Amino acid sequence: MHIYLDCVPCFVEQALGAARMVTDDEGVHERVVRRALRVASEVPFDRSPPEVGREIHRAIREESGADDPYAEVKRRFNGFALGLVPACRERIEASADPFAAAVRLAVAGNIIDFGRVQHLDEADVNTALDEAFHVPLAVDHIDRLRAAVESAGSILYLLDNAGEIVFDRLLIERLPTDRVTAAVRGGPIINDVTRDDAEAVGLTGIVPVIDNGDRSPGTILAHCSDAFRAAFDAADLVIAKGQGNYETLSDAGKAVFFLVKAKCPVIATDIGCDEGAICVIEKGA
Amino acid sequence: MHIYLDCVPCFVEQALGAARMVTDDEGVHERVVRRALRVASEVPFDRSPPEVGREIHRAIREESGADDPYAEVKRRFNGFALGLVPACRERIEASADPFAAAVRLAVAGNIIDFGRVQHLDEADVNTALDEAFHVPLAVDHIDRLRAAVESAGSILYLLDNAGEIVFDRLLIERLPTDRVTAAVRGGPIINDVTRDDAEAVGLTGIVPVIDNGDRSPGTILAHCSDAFRAAFDAADLVIAKGQGNYETLSDAGKAVFFLVKAKCPVIATDIGCDEGAICVIEKGA
Repeated sequence: MHIYLDCVPCFVEQALGAARMVTDDEGVHERVVRRALRVASEVPFDRSPPEVGREIHRAIREESGADDPYAEVKRRFNGFALGLVPACRERIEASADPFAAAVRLAVAGNIIDFGRVQHLDEADVNTALDEAFHVPLAVDHIDRLRAAVESAGSILYLLDNAGEIVFDRLLIERLPTDRVTAAVRGGPIINDVTRDDAEAVGLTGIVPVIDNGDRSPGTILAHCSDAFRAAFDAADLVIAKGQGNYETLSDAGKAVFFLVKAKCPVIATDIGCDEGAICVIEKGA
Repeated sequence: MHIYLDCVPCFVEQALGAARMVTDDEGVHERVVRRALRVASEVPFDRSPPEVGREIHRAIREESGADDPYAEVKRRFNGFALGLVPACRERIEASADPFAAAVRLAVAGNIIDFGRVQHLDEADVNTALDEAFHVPLAVDHIDRLRAAVESAGSILYLLDNAGEIVFDRLLIERLPTDRVTAAVRGGPIINDVTRDDAEAVGLTGIVPVIDNGDRSPGTILAHCSDAFRAAFDAADLVIAKGQGNYETLSDAGKAVFFLVKAKCPVIATDIGCDEGAICVIEKGA
């Protein structure tokens, strides 16, 4: 998904909101906002929105001196989500279609995203998870995903955010784990997952976890490591979680299953769904 | 009022919204937004917000080739407001305090402002005018204004927007017109008034009308003509209408009466009132 003009004011708002979340220092806020403005004024709009998010959060790190300002938020939501595991497992098992239930929960978990909002609490997550079981998917390619999982020799699962990763783990447990590799970001950015999160929620004990070699809130192949790109190219099936992965890979020229909650009007327009909708979309086939 | 960090995303949003109002050409939209981003990245934040509005609308004119894209909107609201004159005069005359009623109507007319919104209709204006008679002013210096009008040897009345100017005329009629000069912008910008509007609503037949020599959505003294600055400095009493005049003159070092509707959260915070409130404020005394 390319940058839409409507993304541009939102970049500036996100830069300001994130800078304020990280520090009370108004000098930092101003320097971050000015850097965001310069980046946005120069970025080619055929790039994806996370190209700008990458530079905004680099600016926040450099100007504030905080390398992982979302560390506490990530710990908090990993811990909260881990506490929900027994109840979620029960609901999945009790469902008439446990695979579909696990997929729905994983998509719903995508609400735990601090890219656009600075405030989100446990009640918001509970609401989203409850909805997952009864709200219709705006795009529902679950059966195509089920078939693809059965036939794929290798599956690459691109993770998204802390907290959310716990629900991904519940889905990954239902995949043929001997054929699955999970991927995290190459370093901390917003509340996106790194290897630390995969370890904290026990995912590294289930499937191999690689990182993509880049610190973007998405998967910008041009910035990823050669090793990651090789894994991406070689995978029979790619499952990509979340908005940042959709934005960066929806035009990647390879079939990808996106499990995504459409959290802003621009991506909703791009997908052709309502804002807030949850979707399982095969794209690029 | 200086530029607040919260003004910055709004600048970008306004640039995009205004560019879209003026033309369907997406190339123009992109060039305008990029110019707005560059201007905002460089402007010193101790300047006032209309310094940026001035450059954004210059960009829109230059990129679209339309020198007065709001001409039709201005004509429409001048015509609409002129149609309300008999009823408004009646309400003023019937009021227990006709001066206060005329002031309130003039402030309420400040809703006709296309700086922040691209859509406003006659029903919005009617609602605001009705409210003017019963909603309390958030800051009420009407009695100080009344006393200042009585004692001032010369009064400079800084006009703001088309349509709104009709309600200013109703107030100006109640001032000692032989001591009043009204001022318009030096050229078309957004729906701000120029000499054409003053003529269209019959104001030029009542008081002398000067222009400030600049095309800003406010009164940026540093950009105004020497003649205007001399008139500003010499006036015993300055009455300034609207948000742009407040933003550019609230720290001008001269007592000014601002008749303003607080149309965004930033000016509301600066004034210390709720968003949407109507205020008559003496400041800088």
